[in-house]
Amino acid sequence: MEAVSERLEFALDIARRAGDFANAHFKAFDSLVIESKGHQDLVSNADKDTETLVRAAIEERFPDDGIVGEEHGRKHGTSGYDWVIDPIDGTANFVRGIPQWCVAIAVAHQGRTVIGVINEPSSGEVFHALRGGGAFCNGKPVRVSQATRLDQGSIGTGYPVRLRTNNIVRVIEQIVGAGGVFFRNASGALMLAYVASGRLIGYIEEHMNSWDCVAGLLMIEEAGGRILVPDPETSLDNGTRVIAGGPQVFDAIEAIARDCFPA
Amino acid sequence: MEAVSERLEFALDIARRAGDFANAHFKAFDSLVIESKGHQDLVSNADKDTETLVRAAIEERFPDDGIVGEEHGRKHGTSGYDWVIDPIDGTANFVRGIPQWCVAIAVAHQGRTVIGVINEPSSGEVFHALRGGGAFCNGKPVRVSQATRLDQGSIGTGYPVRLRTNNIVRVIEQIVGAGGVFFRNASGALMLAYVASGRLIGYIEEHMNSWDCVAGLLMIEEAGGRILVPDPETSLDNGTRVIAGGPQVFDAIEAIARDCFPA
Repeated sequence: MEAVSERLEFALDIARRAGDFANAHFKAFDSLVIESKGHQDLVSNADKDTETLVRAAIEERFPDDGIVGEEHGRKHGTSGYDWVIDPIDGTANFVRGIPQWCVAIAVAHQGRTVIGVINEPSSGEVFHALRGGGAFCNGKPVRVSQATRLDQGSIGTGYPVRLRTNNIVRVIEQIVGAGGVFFRNASGALMLAYVASGRLIGYIEEHMNSWDCVAGLLMIEEAGGRILVPDPETSLDNGTRVIAGGPQVFDAIEAIARDCFPA
Repeated sequence: MEAVSERLEFALDIARRAGDFANAHFKAFDSLVIESKGHQDLVSNADKDTETLVRAAIEERFPDDGIVGEEHGRKHGTSGYDWVIDPIDGTANFVRGIPQWCVAIAVAHQGRTVIGVINEPSSGEVFHALRGGGAFCNGKPVRVSQATRLDQGSIGTGYPVRLRTNNIVRVIEQIVGAGGVFFRNASGALMLAYVASGRLIGYIEEHMNSWDCVAGLLMIEEAGGRILVPDPETSLDNGTRVIAGGPQVFDAIEAIARDCFPA
Protein backbone atom coordinates (compact mmCIF):
# COMPACT_ATOMS: atom_id res chain seq x y z
CA MET A 1 0.00 0.00 0.00
CA GLU A 2 2.89 2.34 0.61
CA ALA A 3 3.93 1.97 -3.00
CA VAL A 4 0.50 3.19 -4.00
CA SER A 5 0.28 6.16 -1.66
CA GLU A 6 3.74 7.29 -2.70
CA ARG A 7 2.59 7.20 -6.31
CA LEU A 8 -0.63 9.06 -5.48
CA GLU A 9 1.28 11.91 -3.92
CA PHE A 10 3.58 12.02 -6.91
CA ALA A 11 0.67 11.84 -9.38
CA LEU A 12 -1.05 14.80 -7.73
CA ASP A 13 2.13 16.82 -7.82
CA ILE A 14 3.01 16.05 -11.44
CA ALA A 15 -0.58 16.64 -12.62
CA ARG A 16 -0.42 20.09 -11.05
CA ARG A 17 2.93 20.87 -12.62
CA ALA A 18 1.80 19.59 -16.02
CA GLY A 19 -1.40 21.63 -15.76
CA ASP A 20 0.52 24.81 -14.96
CA PHE A 21 2.89 24.15 -17.84
CA ALA A 22 0.15 23.49 -20.40
CA ASN A 23 -1.93 26.40 -19.12
CA ALA A 24 0.94 28.81 -19.65
CA HIS A 25 0.96 27.75 -23.32
CA PHE A 26 -2.84 27.97 -23.48
CA LYS A 27 -2.94 31.49 -22.11
CA ALA A 28 -0.23 32.66 -24.48
CA PHE A 29 -2.34 31.84 -27.55
CA ASP A 30 -3.89 34.78 -29.29
CA SER A 31 -7.32 34.08 -30.67
CA LEU A 32 -6.49 36.12 -33.76
CA VAL A 33 -3.73 33.75 -34.82
CA ILE A 34 -5.67 30.64 -33.87
CA GLU A 35 -6.14 29.49 -37.44
CA SER A 36 -2.65 29.87 -38.71
CA LYS A 37 -0.59 26.78 -39.23
CA GLY A 38 2.00 28.10 -36.80
CA HIS A 39 -0.55 28.01 -34.05
CA GLN A 40 -1.40 24.38 -34.73
CA ASP A 41 2.25 23.50 -34.39
CA LEU A 42 2.48 25.44 -31.15
CA VAL A 43 -0.45 23.48 -29.81
CA SER A 44 0.85 20.09 -30.74
CA ASN A 45 4.18 21.09 -29.21
CA ALA A 46 2.38 21.98 -25.98
CA ASP A 47 0.79 18.53 -25.93
CA LYS A 48 4.06 16.70 -26.60
CA ASP A 49 6.13 18.88 -24.29
CA THR A 50 3.66 18.37 -21.46
CA GLU A 51 3.85 14.61 -21.86
CA THR A 52 7.65 14.79 -22.04
CA LEU A 53 7.71 16.70 -18.74
CA VAL A 54 5.50 14.10 -17.07
CA ARG A 55 7.40 11.11 -18.50
CA ALA A 56 10.78 12.47 -17.50
CA ALA A 57 9.61 13.01 -13.93
CA ILE A 58 8.14 9.49 -13.73
CA GLU A 59 11.23 7.87 -15.25
CA GLU A 60 13.44 9.59 -12.72
CA ARG A 61 11.33 8.72 -9.70
CA PHE A 62 9.90 5.32 -10.70
CA PRO A 63 12.32 3.95 -13.30
CA ASP A 64 10.85 0.44 -13.23
CA ASP A 65 7.27 1.53 -13.95
CA GLY A 66 5.72 1.26 -17.40
CA ILE A 67 4.26 4.27 -19.23
CA VAL A 68 1.35 4.54 -21.67
CA GLY A 69 0.82 8.00 -23.14
CA GLU A 70 -1.08 9.62 -25.93
CA GLU A 71 1.83 11.39 -27.56
CA HIS A 72 4.82 9.11 -27.14
CA GLY A 73 5.44 5.36 -27.39
CA ARG A 74 4.72 2.61 -24.86
CA LYS A 75 7.33 1.92 -22.20
CA HIS A 76 7.09 -1.51 -20.61
CA GLY A 77 8.10 -1.69 -16.95
CA THR A 78 9.00 -4.43 -14.48
CA SER A 79 7.34 -3.18 -11.27
CA GLY A 80 3.79 -4.13 -12.18
CA TYR A 81 2.83 -0.45 -12.23
CA ASP A 82 1.91 1.46 -15.37
CA TRP A 83 1.41 5.21 -15.66
CA VAL A 84 -1.31 6.21 -18.08
CA ILE A 85 -0.94 9.79 -19.31
CA ASP A 86 -3.15 12.13 -21.26
CA PRO A 87 -1.14 15.35 -21.19
CA ILE A 88 -4.04 17.41 -22.61
CA ASP A 89 -7.48 15.79 -22.72
CA GLY A 90 -9.83 17.86 -24.83
CA THR A 91 -7.19 18.79 -27.39
CA ALA A 92 -9.76 20.21 -29.80
CA ASN A 93 -10.82 22.66 -27.07
CA PHE A 94 -7.23 23.47 -26.24
CA VAL A 95 -6.44 24.10 -29.91
CA ARG A 96 -9.39 26.41 -30.38
CA GLY A 97 -9.04 28.31 -27.13
CA ILE A 98 -11.98 26.79 -25.25
CA PRO A 99 -10.97 26.71 -21.57
CA GLN A 100 -12.28 23.19 -20.94
CA TRP A 101 -9.47 20.67 -21.03
CA CYS A 102 -7.51 18.78 -18.44
CA VAL A 103 -4.43 16.78 -17.60
CA ALA A 104 -5.34 13.15 -16.84
CA ILE A 105 -2.95 10.80 -15.08
CA ALA A 106 -3.67 7.30 -13.84
CA VAL A 107 -1.66 4.47 -12.35
CA ALA A 108 -2.59 0.87 -13.03
CA HIS A 109 -1.31 -2.13 -11.11
CA GLN A 110 -1.36 -5.35 -13.11
CA GLY A 111 -3.67 -3.58 -15.55
CA ARG A 112 -6.17 -2.47 -12.91
CA THR A 113 -6.41 1.26 -12.19
CA VAL A 114 -5.45 2.16 -8.62
CA ILE A 115 -4.92 5.94 -8.90
CA GLY A 116 -6.61 8.60 -10.99
CA VAL A 117 -5.91 12.34 -11.10
CA ILE A 118 -7.64 14.90 -13.35
CA ASN A 119 -6.53 18.53 -13.19
CA GLU A 120 -8.54 21.23 -14.95
CA PRO A 121 -6.44 24.40 -14.78
CA SER A 122 -9.13 26.74 -16.16
CA SER A 123 -11.46 26.13 -13.22
CA GLY A 124 -8.82 25.29 -10.64
CA GLU A 125 -10.39 21.90 -9.94
CA VAL A 126 -8.27 18.84 -9.22
CA PHE A 127 -10.10 15.52 -8.95
CA HIS A 128 -8.44 12.41 -7.61
CA ALA A 129 -9.26 8.88 -6.56
CA LEU A 130 -7.44 6.05 -4.87
CA ARG A 131 -8.65 2.45 -5.19
CA GLY A 132 -10.40 1.73 -1.88
CA GLY A 133 -9.70 5.26 -0.66
CA GLY A 134 -12.48 7.37 -2.15
CA ALA A 135 -12.84 10.10 -4.75
CA PHE A 136 -12.30 13.81 -4.21
CA CYS A 137 -12.55 17.23 -5.82
CA ASN A 138 -10.03 19.68 -4.40
CA GLY A 139 -9.71 17.39 -1.40
CA LYS A 140 -13.42 17.16 -0.63
CA PRO A 141 -15.23 13.82 -1.06
CA VAL A 142 -17.53 13.52 -4.07
CA ARG A 143 -20.25 11.04 -4.87
CA VAL A 144 -22.18 10.08 -7.98
CA SER A 145 -25.73 11.11 -8.76
CA GLN A 146 -28.53 9.22 -7.08
CA ALA A 147 -30.87 9.96 -10.00
CA THR A 148 -33.29 7.11 -10.67
CA ARG A 149 -34.28 8.01 -14.23
CA LEU A 150 -32.54 9.32 -17.33
CA ASP A 151 -34.69 12.45 -17.35
CA GLN A 152 -33.28 13.56 -14.00
CA GLY A 153 -29.96 14.89 -15.23
CA SER A 154 -27.53 15.11 -18.11
CA ILE A 155 -25.56 12.30 -19.72
CA GLY A 156 -22.08 12.94 -21.06
CA THR A 157 -21.06 11.47 -24.36
CA GLY A 158 -18.43 11.60 -27.05
CA TYR A 159 -17.59 9.79 -30.20
CA PRO A 160 -14.50 8.68 -31.95
CA VAL A 161 -14.46 10.64 -35.21
CA ARG A 162 -11.74 8.24 -36.37
CA LEU A 163 -14.23 5.33 -36.39
CA ARG A 164 -16.47 7.07 -38.91
CA THR A 165 -19.63 5.48 -37.55
CA ASN A 166 -22.81 7.32 -36.84
CA ASN A 167 -23.81 5.20 -33.86
CA ILE A 168 -23.67 8.42 -31.84
CA VAL A 169 -26.84 9.55 -33.60
CA ARG A 170 -28.73 6.57 -32.20
CA VAL A 171 -27.30 7.22 -28.74
CA ILE A 172 -28.57 10.80 -28.87
CA GLU A 173 -31.93 9.58 -30.15
CA GLN A 174 -32.31 7.22 -27.20
CA ILE A 175 -31.23 9.78 -24.60
CA VAL A 176 -33.63 12.38 -25.99
CA GLY A 177 -36.34 9.74 -26.37
CA ALA A 178 -36.03 8.94 -22.65
CA GLY A 179 -36.62 12.63 -21.88
CA GLY A 180 -32.95 13.05 -21.08
CA VAL A 181 -30.34 15.62 -21.96
CA PHE A 182 -26.97 14.97 -23.54
CA PHE A 183 -23.81 16.90 -22.73
CA ARG A 184 -20.62 17.00 -24.77
CA ASN A 185 -17.93 19.49 -23.88
CA ALA A 186 -15.30 17.55 -25.83
CA SER A 187 -13.13 16.57 -22.87
CA GLY A 188 -13.93 12.94 -22.06
CA ALA A 189 -11.77 12.76 -18.94
CA LEU A 190 -13.38 15.90 -17.55
CA MET A 191 -16.88 14.61 -18.22
CA LEU A 192 -16.04 11.37 -16.36
CA ALA A 193 -14.86 13.46 -13.40
CA TYR A 194 -18.21 15.24 -13.59
CA VAL A 195 -19.99 11.88 -13.39
CA ALA A 196 -17.94 11.00 -10.30
CA SER A 197 -18.97 14.26 -8.68
CA GLY A 198 -22.67 13.84 -9.48
CA ARG A 199 -22.74 16.71 -11.98
CA LEU A 200 -23.62 14.39 -14.84
CA ILE A 201 -25.70 11.29 -14.11
CA GLY A 202 -23.71 9.08 -16.46
CA TYR A 203 -21.48 8.71 -19.51
CA ILE A 204 -21.53 6.64 -22.68
CA GLU A 205 -18.98 6.35 -25.49
CA GLU A 206 -18.39 3.60 -28.01
CA HIS A 207 -14.63 3.53 -27.58
CA MET A 208 -12.08 5.55 -25.65
CA ASN A 209 -8.34 5.21 -25.33
CA SER A 210 -7.13 4.21 -21.88
CA TRP A 211 -5.48 7.57 -21.22
CA ASP A 212 -8.82 9.31 -21.80
CA CYS A 213 -10.88 7.22 -19.44
CA VAL A 214 -9.21 5.06 -16.79
CA ALA A 215 -8.55 7.88 -14.31
CA GLY A 216 -12.18 9.01 -14.49
CA LEU A 217 -13.58 5.50 -14.36
CA LEU A 218 -11.77 4.82 -11.08
CA MET A 219 -13.19 8.07 -9.68
CA ILE A 220 -16.70 6.96 -10.59
CA GLU A 221 -16.25 3.58 -8.89
CA GLU A 222 -14.81 5.24 -5.80
CA ALA A 223 -17.64 7.76 -5.74
CA GLY A 224 -20.23 5.00 -5.55
CA GLY A 225 -20.98 4.65 -9.25
CA ARG A 226 -21.09 1.70 -11.58
CA ILE A 227 -18.93 1.20 -14.66
CA LEU A 228 -18.29 -1.29 -17.39
CA VAL A 229 -14.98 -2.60 -16.01
CA PRO A 230 -12.21 -2.29 -18.61
CA ASP A 231 -10.42 -5.53 -19.45
CA PRO A 232 -7.13 -5.42 -17.48
CA GLU A 233 -5.43 -7.52 -20.16
CA THR A 234 -6.18 -5.30 -23.14
CA SER A 235 -7.56 -1.90 -22.15
CA LEU A 236 -4.30 -0.09 -21.42
CA ASP A 237 -3.08 -0.66 -24.95
CA ASN A 238 -6.31 -1.01 -26.90
CA GLY A 239 -8.78 1.18 -25.05
CA THR A 240 -12.29 0.21 -24.05
CA ARG A 241 -15.98 0.87 -24.40
CA VAL A 242 -17.10 3.32 -21.73
CA ILE A 243 -20.38 2.99 -19.84
CA ALA A 244 -20.67 4.61 -16.43
CA GLY A 245 -23.26 6.16 -14.18
CA GLY A 246 -24.96 6.50 -10.88
CA PRO A 247 -26.05 3.17 -9.40
CA GLN A 248 -29.69 3.63 -10.31
CA VAL A 249 -29.29 4.73 -13.94
CA PHE A 250 -26.38 2.52 -14.96
CA ASP A 251 -28.58 -0.30 -16.28
CA ALA A 252 -30.53 2.11 -18.47
CA ILE A 253 -27.31 3.56 -19.93
CA GLU A 254 -25.93 0.07 -20.51
CA ALA A 255 -29.13 -0.82 -22.36
CA ILE A 256 -28.55 2.13 -24.72
CA ALA A 257 -25.00 0.93 -25.38
CA ARG A 258 -26.23 -2.61 -26.09
CA ASP A 259 -28.74 -1.23 -28.52
CA CYS A 260 -26.50 1.24 -30.35
CA PHE A 261 -23.01 -0.28 -30.46
CA PRO A 262 -21.76 -3.51 -32.01
CA ALA A 263 -21.08 -6.24 -29.42
CA MET B 1 -23.84 57.37 -29.62
CA GLU B 2 -22.98 58.70 -26.21
CA ALA B 3 -26.09 57.06 -24.80
CA VAL B 4 -24.81 53.75 -26.12
CA SER B 5 -21.24 54.03 -24.87
CA GLU B 6 -22.47 55.06 -21.44
CA ARG B 7 -24.64 51.94 -21.37
CA LEU B 8 -21.76 49.75 -22.57
CA GLU B 9 -19.54 50.89 -19.73
CA PHE B 10 -22.36 50.27 -17.29
CA ALA B 11 -23.17 46.85 -18.80
CA LEU B 12 -19.55 45.73 -18.44
CA ASP B 13 -19.47 46.87 -14.84
CA ILE B 14 -22.77 45.28 -13.83
CA ALA B 15 -21.95 42.01 -15.63
CA ARG B 16 -18.75 41.81 -13.58
CA ARG B 17 -20.53 42.54 -10.34
CA ALA B 18 -23.29 40.06 -11.13
CA GLY B 19 -20.70 37.42 -12.03
CA ASP B 20 -18.84 37.92 -8.77
CA PHE B 21 -22.09 37.72 -6.83
CA ALA B 22 -23.31 34.53 -8.53
CA ASN B 23 -19.87 32.96 -8.34
CA ALA B 24 -19.72 33.46 -4.58
CA HIS B 25 -22.94 31.41 -4.35
CA PHE B 26 -21.57 28.84 -6.80
CA LYS B 27 -18.38 28.31 -4.85
CA ALA B 28 -20.25 27.97 -1.58
CA PHE B 29 -22.15 24.91 -2.79
CA ASP B 30 -20.98 21.61 -1.44
CA SER B 31 -21.14 18.81 -3.97
CA LEU B 32 -22.31 16.46 -1.25
CA VAL B 33 -25.55 18.35 -0.66
CA ILE B 34 -26.14 18.98 -4.36
CA GLU B 35 -29.17 16.74 -4.53
CA SER B 36 -31.07 17.95 -1.53
CA LYS B 37 -34.11 20.10 -2.05
CA GLY B 38 -32.50 22.84 0.01
CA HIS B 39 -29.73 23.12 -2.52
CA GLN B 40 -32.17 23.57 -5.39
CA ASP B 41 -33.77 26.43 -3.53
CA LEU B 42 -30.39 27.97 -2.88
CA VAL B 43 -29.64 27.84 -6.57
CA SER B 44 -32.86 29.35 -7.71
CA ASN B 45 -32.36 32.06 -5.11
CA ALA B 46 -28.92 32.75 -6.58
CA ASP B 47 -30.48 33.15 -10.01
CA LYS B 48 -33.25 35.46 -8.79
CA ASP B 49 -31.00 37.46 -6.48
CA THR B 50 -28.48 38.04 -9.27
CA GLU B 51 -31.20 39.36 -11.55
CA THR B 52 -32.54 41.54 -8.73
CA LEU B 53 -29.09 43.05 -8.25
CA VAL B 54 -28.78 43.81 -11.97
CA ARG B 55 -32.32 45.21 -12.30
CA ALA B 56 -31.96 47.46 -9.29
CA ALA B 57 -28.75 48.93 -10.65
CA ILE B 58 -30.30 49.52 -14.07
CA GLU B 59 -33.45 51.07 -12.62
CA GLU B 60 -31.40 53.47 -10.59
CA ARG B 61 -29.10 54.51 -13.41
CA PHE B 62 -31.43 54.30 -16.42
CA PRO B 63 -34.95 54.60 -14.98
CA ASP B 64 -36.58 55.10 -18.40
CA ASP B 65 -35.14 51.93 -19.97
CA GLY B 66 -37.15 48.75 -20.35
CA ILE B 67 -36.01 45.42 -18.87
CA VAL B 68 -36.51 41.85 -20.09
CA GLY B 69 -35.17 39.19 -17.75
CA GLU B 70 -35.41 35.46 -17.28
CA GLU B 71 -36.44 35.49 -13.64
CA HIS B 72 -38.64 38.55 -13.21
CA GLY B 73 -41.39 40.23 -15.25
CA ARG B 74 -41.12 42.55 -18.22
CA LYS B 75 -40.64 46.26 -17.56
CA HIS B 76 -41.60 48.52 -20.43
CA GLY B 77 -39.55 51.71 -20.79
CA THR B 78 -39.88 54.99 -22.64
CA SER B 79 -36.28 55.63 -23.77
CA GLY B 80 -36.25 53.15 -26.64
CA TYR B 81 -33.63 51.09 -24.84
CA ASP B 82 -34.29 47.64 -23.38
CA TRP B 83 -31.95 45.68 -21.15
CA VAL B 84 -32.03 41.94 -21.75
CA ILE B 85 -30.76 39.96 -18.77
CA ASP B 86 -29.87 36.33 -18.24
CA PRO B 87 -28.50 36.39 -14.70
CA ILE B 88 -27.19 32.82 -14.97
CA ASP B 89 -27.06 31.22 -18.40
CA GLY B 90 -26.38 27.50 -18.11
CA THR B 91 -28.49 27.08 -14.99
CA ALA B 92 -28.36 23.28 -15.21
CA ASN B 93 -24.57 23.49 -15.00
CA PHE B 94 -24.75 26.00 -12.17
CA VAL B 95 -27.19 23.77 -10.26
CA ARG B 96 -25.02 20.71 -10.65
CA GLY B 97 -21.69 22.36 -9.95
CA ILE B 98 -20.32 22.39 -13.50
CA PRO B 99 -18.17 25.53 -13.78
CA GLN B 100 -19.47 26.49 -17.24
CA TRP B 101 -22.12 29.19 -16.93
CA CYS B 102 -22.20 32.91 -17.52
CA VAL B 103 -23.96 36.19 -16.94
CA ALA B 104 -25.39 37.54 -20.21
CA ILE B 105 -26.50 41.14 -20.57
CA ALA B 106 -27.58 42.90 -23.74
CA VAL B 107 -29.04 46.26 -24.62
CA ALA B 108 -31.45 46.64 -27.52
CA HIS B 109 -32.47 49.91 -29.13
CA GLN B 110 -35.86 49.78 -30.83
CA GLY B 111 -35.61 45.99 -30.63
CA ARG B 112 -32.19 45.77 -32.28
CA THR B 113 -29.26 44.65 -30.13
CA VAL B 114 -26.56 47.31 -29.77
CA ILE B 115 -24.56 45.98 -26.80
CA GLY B 116 -23.75 42.46 -25.63
CA VAL B 117 -21.72 41.37 -22.61
CA ILE B 118 -21.05 37.78 -21.52
CA ASN B 119 -19.06 37.16 -18.35
CA GLU B 120 -17.87 33.66 -17.47
CA PRO B 121 -16.50 33.86 -13.92
CA SER B 122 -15.05 30.31 -13.88
CA SER B 123 -12.58 31.06 -16.67
CA GLY B 124 -12.24 34.78 -16.04
CA GLU B 125 -13.33 35.60 -19.59
CA VAL B 126 -15.50 38.62 -20.36
CA PHE B 127 -16.75 38.95 -23.93
CA HIS B 128 -18.35 42.11 -25.22
CA ALA B 129 -19.57 43.68 -28.42
CA LEU B 130 -20.82 47.06 -29.48
CA ARG B 131 -22.87 47.51 -32.68
CA GLY B 132 -20.42 48.91 -35.21
CA GLY B 133 -17.62 48.79 -32.67
CA GLY B 134 -16.32 45.23 -32.81
CA ALA B 135 -16.28 42.17 -30.56
CA PHE B 136 -13.77 41.42 -27.84
CA CYS B 137 -12.65 38.84 -25.28
CA ASN B 138 -11.02 40.43 -22.25
CA GLY B 139 -10.49 43.54 -24.32
CA LYS B 140 -8.79 41.81 -27.27
CA PRO B 141 -10.55 41.70 -30.65
CA VAL B 142 -12.01 38.34 -31.70
CA ARG B 143 -13.17 37.07 -35.04
CA VAL B 144 -15.24 34.15 -36.22
CA SER B 145 -13.89 30.99 -37.79
CA GLN B 146 -12.90 31.09 -41.44
CA ALA B 147 -13.64 27.38 -41.82
CA THR B 148 -15.04 26.51 -45.23
CA ARG B 149 -16.60 23.13 -44.43
CA LEU B 150 -18.54 21.64 -41.54
CA ASP B 151 -15.84 19.06 -40.90
CA GLN B 152 -13.32 21.77 -40.04
CA GLY B 153 -14.50 22.50 -36.53
CA SER B 154 -17.21 21.99 -33.96
CA ILE B 155 -20.79 23.25 -34.07
CA GLY B 156 -22.54 24.26 -30.88
CA THR B 157 -26.11 23.26 -30.30
CA GLY B 158 -28.82 23.04 -27.70
CA TYR B 159 -32.44 22.16 -27.54
CA PRO B 160 -35.45 23.35 -25.69
CA VAL B 161 -36.49 20.41 -23.51
CA ARG B 162 -39.78 22.27 -22.94
CA LEU B 163 -40.73 21.83 -26.61
CA ARG B 164 -40.59 18.04 -26.37
CA THR B 165 -39.53 17.62 -29.96
CA ASN B 166 -36.77 15.39 -31.14
CA ASN B 167 -35.65 17.61 -34.01
CA ILE B 168 -32.31 17.80 -32.26
CA VAL B 169 -31.68 14.18 -33.24
CA ARG B 170 -31.91 15.10 -36.93
CA VAL B 171 -29.62 18.09 -36.37
CA ILE B 172 -27.01 15.79 -34.83
CA GLU B 173 -27.48 13.30 -37.65
CA GLN B 174 -26.78 15.96 -40.26
CA ILE B 175 -23.75 17.39 -38.45
CA VAL B 176 -22.25 13.93 -38.01
CA GLY B 177 -23.21 13.02 -41.58
CA ALA B 178 -21.22 16.02 -42.84
CA GLY B 179 -18.17 14.73 -40.97
CA GLY B 180 -18.66 17.39 -38.34
CA VAL B 181 -18.57 17.44 -34.58
CA PHE B 182 -21.27 18.74 -32.26
CA PHE B 183 -20.60 20.51 -28.99
CA ARG B 184 -23.09 21.11 -26.21
CA ASN B 185 -21.85 22.43 -22.89
CA ALA B 186 -25.35 23.52 -21.85
CA SER B 187 -24.68 27.26 -21.77
CA GLY B 188 -26.11 28.72 -24.97
CA ALA B 189 -24.81 32.24 -24.39
CA LEU B 190 -21.31 30.95 -23.75
CA MET B 191 -21.36 28.80 -26.89
CA LEU B 192 -22.40 31.85 -28.95
CA ALA B 193 -19.45 33.77 -27.48
CA TYR B 194 -17.29 30.83 -28.56
CA VAL B 195 -18.62 31.18 -32.11
CA ALA B 196 -17.77 34.88 -32.07
CA SER B 197 -14.23 34.05 -31.02
CA GLY B 198 -13.75 31.36 -33.66
CA ARG B 199 -13.65 28.50 -31.15
CA LEU B 200 -16.79 26.93 -32.58
CA ILE B 201 -17.49 27.34 -36.28
CA GLY B 202 -21.23 27.85 -35.79
CA TYR B 203 -24.34 27.35 -33.71
CA ILE B 204 -27.83 26.01 -34.32
CA GLU B 205 -30.85 25.82 -32.03
CA GLU B 206 -34.53 25.56 -32.83
CA HIS B 207 -35.61 28.24 -30.37
CA MET B 208 -33.90 30.35 -27.72
CA ASN B 209 -35.20 33.04 -25.44
CA SER B 210 -33.88 36.52 -26.15
CA TRP B 211 -31.87 36.69 -22.92
CA ASP B 212 -30.00 33.51 -23.92
CA CYS B 213 -28.97 34.64 -27.37
CA VAL B 214 -29.07 38.32 -28.33
CA ALA B 215 -25.81 39.30 -26.62
CA GLY B 216 -23.95 36.45 -28.33
CA LEU B 217 -25.56 37.04 -31.71
CA LEU B 218 -24.36 40.65 -31.75
CA MET B 219 -20.86 39.43 -30.91
CA ILE B 220 -20.95 37.05 -33.85
CA GLU B 221 -22.04 39.80 -36.25
CA GLU B 222 -19.38 42.14 -34.92
CA ALA B 223 -16.75 39.41 -35.21
CA GLY B 224 -17.44 38.99 -38.92
CA GLY B 225 -19.95 36.16 -38.73
CA ARG B 226 -23.39 35.68 -40.19
CA ILE B 227 -26.61 35.16 -38.24
CA LEU B 228 -30.29 34.70 -38.77
CA VAL B 229 -31.32 38.21 -37.69
CA PRO B 230 -33.92 38.08 -34.90
CA ASP B 231 -37.17 39.90 -35.62
CA PRO B 232 -36.89 43.24 -33.77
CA GLU B 233 -40.66 43.32 -33.28
CA THR B 234 -41.06 39.97 -31.57
CA SER B 235 -37.76 38.45 -30.50
CA LEU B 236 -37.26 40.28 -27.20
CA ASP B 237 -40.49 38.89 -25.82
CA ASN B 238 -40.93 35.69 -27.81
CA GLY B 239 -37.40 34.52 -28.54
CA THR B 240 -36.07 33.37 -31.87
CA ARG B 241 -34.61 30.58 -33.91
CA VAL B 242 -30.81 30.71 -33.73
CA ILE B 243 -28.55 30.06 -36.70
CA ALA B 244 -25.07 31.54 -36.70
CA GLY B 245 -21.62 30.84 -38.03
CA GLY B 246 -18.51 31.85 -39.82
CA PRO B 247 -19.22 33.45 -43.20
CA GLN B 248 -18.26 30.38 -45.18
CA VAL B 249 -20.22 27.76 -43.24
CA PHE B 250 -23.35 29.76 -42.43
CA ASP B 251 -25.25 28.59 -45.51
CA ALA B 252 -24.58 24.94 -44.69
CA ILE B 253 -25.81 25.43 -41.11
CA GLU B 254 -28.89 27.27 -42.36
CA ALA B 255 -29.62 24.36 -44.69
CA ILE B 256 -29.60 21.99 -41.72
CA ALA B 257 -32.07 24.23 -39.88
CA ARG B 258 -34.34 24.36 -42.92
CA ASP B 259 -34.29 20.62 -43.12
CA CYS B 260 -34.78 19.82 -39.43
CA PHE B 261 -37.04 22.54 -38.01
CA PRO B 262 -40.60 23.52 -38.91
CA ALA B 263 -40.77 26.75 -40.93
